[in-house]
Amino acid sequence: MKDPVEPFVGVDFGATNIRAGLVDGEGRILRRAHSGTYASEGKEKVISRIVKLVRDLGQNDRMEVGIACPGPVDGSKGIIFDPPNLPGWKKVHLKEELQDELGTRVSVENDANMVTYGEWMFGAGKGVRNLLCLTLGSGVGSGLVLNGSLYTGANGFAAELGHTIVELKGPQCRCGARGCLESLVGAKSIVAEVESAIASGHETILTQGSGEMTVSRISSAAAKGDSFSVKILEKAGFYVGVAVSNAVALLDVEMVVVGGGISKAGPLIIDPIRKAISSNLISFSLRALKVVRSQLGDDAGILGISAYSRVSGALK
Amino acid sequence: MKDPVEPFVGVDFGATNIRAGLVDGEGRILRRAHSGTYASEGKEKVISRIVKLVRDLGQNDRMEVGIACPGPVDGSKGIIFDPPNLPGWKKVHLKEELQDELGTRVSVENDANMVTYGEWMFGAGKGVRNLLCLTLGSGVGSGLVLNGSLYTGANGFAAELGHTIVELKGPQCRCGARGCLESLVGAKSIVAEVESAIASGHETILTQGSGEMTVSRISSAAAKGDSFSVKILEKAGFYVGVAVSNAVALLDVEMVVVGGGISKAGPLIIDPIRKAISSNLISFSLRALKVVRSQLGDDAGILGISAYSRVSGALK
Repeated sequence: MKDPVEPFVGVDFGATNIRAGLVDGEGRILRRAHSGTYASEGKEKVISRIVKLVRDLGQNDRMEVGIACPGPVDGSKGIIFDPPNLPGWKKVHLKEELQDELGTRVSVENDANMVTYGEWMFGAGKGVRNLLCLTLGSGVGSGLVLNGSLYTGANGFAAELGHTIVELKGPQCRCGARGCLESLVGAKSIVAEVESAIASGHETILTQGSGEMTVSRISSAAAKGDSFSVKILEKAGFYVGVAVSNAVALLDVEMVVVGGGISKAGPLIIDPIRKAISSNLISFSLRALKVVRSQLGDDAGILGISAYSRVSGALK
Repeated sequence: MKDPVEPFVGVDFGATNIRAGLVDGEGRILRRAHSGTYASEGKEKVISRIVKLVRDLGQNDRMEVGIACPGPVDGSKGIIFDPPNLPGWKKVHLKEELQDELGTRVSVENDANMVTYGEWMFGAGKGVRNLLCLTLGSGVGSGLVLNGSLYTGANGFAAELGHTIVELKGPQCRCGARGCLESLVGAKSIVAEVESAIASGHETILTQGSGEMTVSRISSAAAKGDSFSVKILEKAGFYVGVAVSNAVALLDVEMVVVGGGISKAGPLIIDPIRKAISSNLISFSLRALKVVRSQLGDDAGILGISAYSRVSGALK
């Protein structure tokens, strides 16, 4: 068993960023390191970048390392199975590869689950027994705490809210199905919808300014009262709310935590989510469901993997 | 704590039937009693019928009684909250009323959860750690076993797969939303669809024979090769399969148990369910998901409530 006061290295890596932090036992980040992922340069380069960041933080072979990465992941073996976000990562034994390289115990877990664990231990969900946590970004990540434990399912593939179907004849999703929540509200879909509406002449202040269209620009425009952008957020919130209603009908959680880029729009996205839930969820009035914004932002994954690996390491 | 060999009285009551059984500690039904519910005659008459059936089984004040009834139910207090299936049952303290009448401890639980518990303890789901159990009848009931325990959620309202939304612009459901699974595949909806298709001239052997149209008649016609009836079951199976895909994407269960009237059609309904799951569920090929028929039929609720009440009583 690990000395509980020994610092721990948490790494949260996705299609775009690798974020690492040296975390103490109380969930404080003592030091940080960051790099782009540049996933297109291939798996070996990405793994070298992770190793470099971990060493930059002063990691030594007494310091354990936890990696939060895109799923599907088999956490018990530390294998990544071909995530839609990381083309070419077919059955990568990341745990083994990093253990050999770093000379210490490494754990590898699904990033959406680790964000959930972080928000539950240190953030918006502290003390809540049953919660659903969403990360609305280029993908839609989600995680579940049920009966006071992180719930990962029979194969570790649980909590794929982004790949539940909301609109049967909706857009093709990269998972193979049509009309999944991610195909409707993933950042790419929202941006594509906005660009096509602009091309067909919709009036919006988004046509002013230059540079790449992003969800963050759309949120800022909505905050300035741009009615086109407000409607885009309302539509996204409606779809998220329907998917969340379905999840709550099944799981009767007490809290839904909403994070990721679009959540920075605050009530402009949270209110439409709440509205769709209240009109679609059975027995809504008998529940006291809370829908709140995440509190930890980009630190949730680093804090989550550190705390979770500490606990699961101590149990081994 | 109760002597574990004392027989237990289990009652499963719904909108149509009240079924009661005297159950031993090994899950054998020693004696049975049955009556229609006649819910339209009012709550007091229905409660008298339950009391009479329980006494007909030879219940005495040492024998505890468990009631499986339509939800929403607060199992800890034994209160029924206005089930769509039992009009007029607003906040009925069934546990208290029956305890006063019968002079013994009474427990009251959601029927779909008790069917699930029965199939898990004694039927198709024996030994499975994570399962979803469906009862396709006039309503769509469902229950969940997660991490080897019955999962009931924060308010006891979990596992409402029947009220998850499958078709956003679908039919109005009595829960208030549109396009819930129940609004699409509840027995009444299927029968209404068939009657309207027949009225508009569709060819089917269902026009031969007389008497009320039922799901059971449709299933028999499908078994005889009636292509109209086969298509009706395929469509119902598709919707069930989509809802199940969503549930498995969230919960990563190993097994789905399908029961209720329409499940008697066997592969004619199970195969379309499997097909819809395999084309809609993320990471389908990485799982070993089993979709099977229930084994206990109408006894599942009686066996479930008896076993569950025994265990939860012993813990008190």
